[in-house]
Amino acid sequence: MSGNSIGQNFVVTTFGESHGVAIGCIIDGCPPGVELTEADMQHDLDRRRPGTSRYTTARREPDEVRILSGVFEGQTTGTSIGLLIENTDQRSKDYSNIKDLFRPGHADYTYQQKYGQRDYRGGGRSSARETAMRVAAGAVAKKYLKQVHGVEIHAYLSQLGPIAAETVDFEQIEQNPFFFPDASKLDSLDDYMRELKKSGDSIGAKVSVVATGVPVGLGEPVFDRLDADIAHALMGINAVKGVEIGDGFEVVNQKGSEHRDLMSPEGFASNHAGGILGGISSGQPIVAHIAMKPTSSISVPGESMNAQGEVAEVVTKGRHDPCVGIRAVPIAEAMLAIVLMDHLLRHRAQNMDVNSSTPIIGMR
Amino acid sequence: MSGNSIGQNFVVTTFGESHGVAIGCIIDGCPPGVELTEADMQHDLDRRRPGTSRYTTARREPDEVRILSGVFEGQTTGTSIGLLIENTDQRSKDYSNIKDLFRPGHADYTYQQKYGQRDYRGGGRSSARETAMRVAAGAVAKKYLKQVHGVEIHAYLSQLGPIAAETVDFEQIEQNPFFFPDASKLDSLDDYMRELKKSGDSIGAKVSVVATGVPVGLGEPVFDRLDADIAHALMGINAVKGVEIGDGFEVVNQKGSEHRDLMSPEGFASNHAGGILGGISSGQPIVAHIAMKPTSSISVPGESMNAQGEVAEVVTKGRHDPCVGIRAVPIAEAMLAIVLMDHLLRHRAQNMDVNSSTPIIGMR
Amino acid sequence: MSGNSIGQNFVVTTFGESHGVAIGCIIDGCPPGVELTEADMQHDLDRRRPGTSRYTTARREPDEVRILSGVFEGQTTGTSIGLLIENTDQRSKDYSNIKDLFRPGHADYTYQQKYGQRDYRGGGRSSARETAMRVAAGAVAKKYLKQVHGVEIHAYLSQLGPIAAETVDFEQIEQNPFFFPDASKLDSLDDYMRELKKSGDSIGAKVSVVATGVPVGLGEPVFDRLDADIAHALMGINAVKGVEIGDGFEVVNQKGSEHRDLMSPEGFASNHAGGILGGISSGQPIVAHIAMKPTSSISVPGESMNAQGEVAEVVTKGRHDPCVGIRAVPIAEAMLAIVLMDHLLRHRAQNMDVNSSTPIIGMR
Amino acid sequence: MSGNSIGQNFVVTTFGESHGVAIGCIIDGCPPGVELTEADMQHDLDRRRPGTSRYTTARREPDEVRILSGVFEGQTTGTSIGLLIENTDQRSKDYSNIKDLFRPGHADYTYQQKYGQRDYRGGGRSSARETAMRVAAGAVAKKYLKQVHGVEIHAYLSQLGPIAAETVDFEQIEQNPFFFPDASKLDSLDDYMRELKKSGDSIGAKVSVVATGVPVGLGEPVFDRLDADIAHALMGINAVKGVEIGDGFEVVNQKGSEHRDLMSPEGFASNHAGGILGGISSGQPIVAHIAMKPTSSISVPGESMNAQGEVAEVVTKGRHDPCVGIRAVPIAEAMLAIVLMDHLLRHRAQNMDVNSSTPIIGMR
Repeated sequence: MSGNSIGQNFVVTTFGESHGVAIGCIIDGCPPGVELTEADMQHDLDRRRPGTSRYTTARREPDEVRILSGVFEGQTTGTSIGLLIENTDQRSKDYSNIKDLFRPGHADYTYQQKYGQRDYRGGGRSSARETAMRVAAGAVAKKYLKQVHGVEIHAYLSQLGPIAAETVDFEQIEQNPFFFPDASKLDSLDDYMRELKKSGDSIGAKVSVVATGVPVGLGEPVFDRLDADIAHALMGINAVKGVEIGDGFEVVNQKGSEHRDLMSPEGFASNHAGGILGGISSGQPIVAHIAMKPTSSISVPGESMNAQGEVAEVVTKGRHDPCVGIRAVPIAEAMLAIVLMDHLLRHRAQNMDVNSSTPIIGMR
Repeated sequence: MSGNSIGQNFVVTTFGESHGVAIGCIIDGCPPGVELTEADMQHDLDRRRPGTSRYTTARREPDEVRILSGVFEGQTTGTSIGLLIENTDQRSKDYSNIKDLFRPGHADYTYQQKYGQRDYRGGGRSSARETAMRVAAGAVAKKYLKQVHGVEIHAYLSQLGPIAAETVDFEQIEQNPFFFPDASKLDSLDDYMRELKKSGDSIGAKVSVVATGVPVGLGEPVFDRLDADIAHALMGINAVKGVEIGDGFEVVNQKGSEHRDLMSPEGFASNHAGGILGGISSGQPIVAHIAMKPTSSISVPGESMNAQGEVAEVVTKGRHDPCVGIRAVPIAEAMLAIVLMDHLLRHRAQNMDVNSSTPIIGMR
Repeated sequence: MSGNSIGQNFVVTTFGESHGVAIGCIIDGCPPGVELTEADMQHDLDRRRPGTSRYTTARREPDEVRILSGVFEGQTTGTSIGLLIENTDQRSKDYSNIKDLFRPGHADYTYQQKYGQRDYRGGGRSSARETAMRVAAGAVAKKYLKQVHGVEIHAYLSQLGPIAAETVDFEQIEQNPFFFPDASKLDSLDDYMRELKKSGDSIGAKVSVVATGVPVGLGEPVFDRLDADIAHALMGINAVKGVEIGDGFEVVNQKGSEHRDLMSPEGFASNHAGGILGGISSGQPIVAHIAMKPTSSISVPGESMNAQGEVAEVVTKGRHDPCVGIRAVPIAEAMLAIVLMDHLLRHRAQNMDVNSSTPIIGMR
Repeated sequence: MSGNSIGQNFVVTTFGESHGVAIGCIIDGCPPGVELTEADMQHDLDRRRPGTSRYTTARREPDEVRILSGVFEGQTTGTSIGLLIENTDQRSKDYSNIKDLFRPGHADYTYQQKYGQRDYRGGGRSSARETAMRVAAGAVAKKYLKQVHGVEIHAYLSQLGPIAAETVDFEQIEQNPFFFPDASKLDSLDDYMRELKKSGDSIGAKVSVVATGVPVGLGEPVFDRLDADIAHALMGINAVKGVEIGDGFEVVNQKGSEHRDLMSPEGFASNHAGGILGGISSGQPIVAHIAMKPTSSISVPGESMNAQGEVAEVVTKGRHDPCVGIRAVPIAEAMLAIVLMDHLLRHRAQNMDVNSSTPIIGMR
């Protein structure tokens, strides 16, 4: 299968370029009988949508999704679900001047070399605009996971440049435009972003995502471990350069006696593992973190090259996010939801005889 | 496809338990005409093999691989390649006492819950013994990549607990039992490991892997980006809790003007990206890092639970590696090789009209 | 991967119901640089389109396809291609009376049992309306195959009920509304169809499809043989009950000395094999035949059952084709094109070192 | 995925050449808890085994299968199952004289062209010897299907050249070396085969396969319909040139009023459809037929070509079956079992909320 699909039993396939006619996706394998309307997806789409605060790009897209198939009389039918978002605010002329330019840190050079040509308008297929469809598909997965298993998935911005959250208050996340869980840092964030915008530069970020209520048993060792598939899905988000499960890179300097999560009939005593043991969910919360690089679309000039092999200077003037980590929050949730949904279905396929949603050896 | 296969066009499928009759794999999609003998795989198998130094487990396995098919008169034929390693030093009785025990930090509990039963001997399928087959399959990929494209893949232990390499001397890696690239730290490592063994504890590690000579253009956005598939493959190695590409988590506090790799007709000025832009190889070295957790098989006692739901104390007495990061070095190379090989073939499928191995717009 | 996709390297995924908002598909893996406009697909869509002659259903759909992505400045870019056809002439009320009825010979009962519900309007997802997207995707494959390898694919109606073609004149096929290759039988066909419509009944048919210019070497034994994948694709067309390659069922009573195609440096002396040996194309024309059942949507009353488990009589009054074999002609071409395209790309992936398009040992 | 695997959730991957060291396979996705020993597979292996009667090849292979993994204490564990059969009676020298010869009707020419080389010994990978592994894997599927759903799968030789069964007595099938269901024709068959062997020629055959007890609901439209996947699996058996479901090619001359299977609360009145409607099992018996070509390995001389592009005469002297259809009987059962097993698991993945094994709207 070529690279525009993710999943084995819950399969999401996307299409669409930043400045094309429309973006869309097909969800294949959604169980029948799920109540679904456009509104179920619109909330997350709105969270990802550009133009909602002064901290994100000024491009304005209503991002209204339409369900084209797979839903009848308000319920999924088990057949493939077609979703579509028309592109409205395209402003293609913004980009004509970079037609032959390879912007440093962007995919211009690699797309050109791979395919021998590219849609240069706004990054074409390499633009994060495509992630709107992931958010839409993820909303379907989130709804099912919540309804059937009580799974809740929440992501948040855990660090923006030098400013890290010291507390995590899930209530706080939706209360501020940064999706930041530590209210005491909001002023610092605001100051930092103002300065950043003035300088024309951008900044990296760390996003964390947590799923609670995940049944024990999801994950297909040895290659399609749950953590491996989460890593695949999260690293596949634009601008991600690192993925951690549980303690992540902190384990490098941990001892076995510190790291291992002791267990008893009362449950696990800690969650260094991030909810996954041997590639299979343990019933604890799934915890993952991702590192988002600073966008390369900045107004600080930089040396580059053009398609004629000549030196060229690049100054990006379009509408861009100074910190792409912010809008990545709903995308991270969506990707985790898609992976969990896929693994739930994969697990069922093989283990219906086993009662998969209830641990066999229960913890109290 | 179920979880014991990796790859789309170069597919590796493994089987085998730690203390079963044998472990093996099938490689499907290897190009014909590659000269291949058991010796090509044995070198890497020996590097991964247990019992080679006092820093690794005392289990002794010759790990002699046999080619059962797919090779005729010394060359691959393009048909599926069957590989087999018989298990010899199994000592199953070592494990009978943990039959009903869920060792903390291990996959015992999750396998039991997922499948309703498990082969408890030495971890069964969840044991890292299975990775011997990945090393064998990876050796085939490495050979082809080197022969046809001059790709070289080298991994090394970049950090063991508190001791990090300060210099990277590729010549040094194979000169010491730690695969450590900084000779000035070897005494410290030796001291550290002696102390660790005495304490009965284990320690985490960081492994780095670098591929040079990778042609520009590998990677299939948007989901099967090269970095996403590398993350999948590396996170799928036992005990890995984090994966970084290029600067990894350092990007969280980088500015766009620092991070982006400027380019000119002379080439790239830096490699913060780790050789991948927009999910596609840029022609620069591919650089990845993984975090290996400390093994949970330690002789420090720990509270746990048994299959009857009762409290139980666990003390591991078997033969185990105090730092699984050491033997992960050849495994990381193998997994990167398998991913690159798969993507090379995937790229060719779609882009034969484009001359994929030579950049269209050359850098000098 | 769930069931709405076909192919491994050239992947077509469809969505859409007979009376939904729209039908559509995503083509993933199309090589870049192929000149493509809507017009390239429209010709085949028009051949499949309902309402074009008195021998097919009276439903009128303009079936105008829109390219939503993957094409830039008139050429494919190598990214996923989104295609969409809006449904216009839906007349859903025609179907409300069969909401709870399981029409014999239809998928009503099995969809209801499988999914617990169904879109009953015009057969929903089980309607052949979905095949319009296959025809559109197939047109892309046909164009590439013709341009790059000179492959030509032609299907025709070889038999309609008792009337079989005795000669095959490829020029004739597009000259009559039956896609029939034997002009001497056109009057009989017309008479037969008039009588059939009067009786309110329907009739089966045989469709043949031939591809010339197919390079030697396509097909991936042992399971994804070219013939096996052709059988999968053709049996997957609505109403198909049988697939033959080459001599097909005639081989049951053939001797080896009759059947085997002798070969010499001048070429093959015959083509009983239908262009495939050992699951791999031989360079001869690929020849396949399919059996199309008579549609079950007829006005002859028939006993059936409803969703309440009661006896019910069924009389279909909607707009239907008396012989679905006629409109299956462009669909069969499309499916063969999709399979050949996929196998061309799969072959390239593994065998770029081998010059795949020219036989190594040439026949003159 | 390359071509040596079949299935999505129950995946069988095979390796091995006719005269290599061994043949083997990996079954991935088998549910845990199935009681399994070598004996479960040996019965079907013995039915397929060469050298068991004077009507089949004289090659003698004990075909003793070994389970290498995935089974612990007599039960499957849910992990990948490795199976191995060593080749013993190889006699490679029989084949040295055909090293450079392209035998007509064989895969010699196409393998050589596809891969640039081939293992010519006994046909190498293209030999039907590989099907032993399919029979072994199929036996696992058959056991599970029978145990959990009461599914029974039986194939038989329905026609050998001009001699067709007129009655089908399932008891009779295992009583004669032809797997023929009509005892009244056994003498004719014996006479026919004697004459055939004398003439040095071979003959085609028709094999039929029936599965009873298949739950309603299996099949994944629109591309992975149950009939499409059965066609793929059966056409993928060596020498098969045609596949029919239910009435197959007879539908070409049927009317809708004859073909459609009327239904009532008492059940279906007939089974022209062969147990599949809209690509989904209906709960009726699944019925399929395949056409097996006469083997091309005959002692009747035939003109061919060699690897040097010269004319060459071919006379096959090795040990071969005069009618490959006979030994195809257990292979057809195995392939149908593998497809049904895969679809059972695929159906469960998506439809656990629906009670898949019991029809929602019951027939009495």
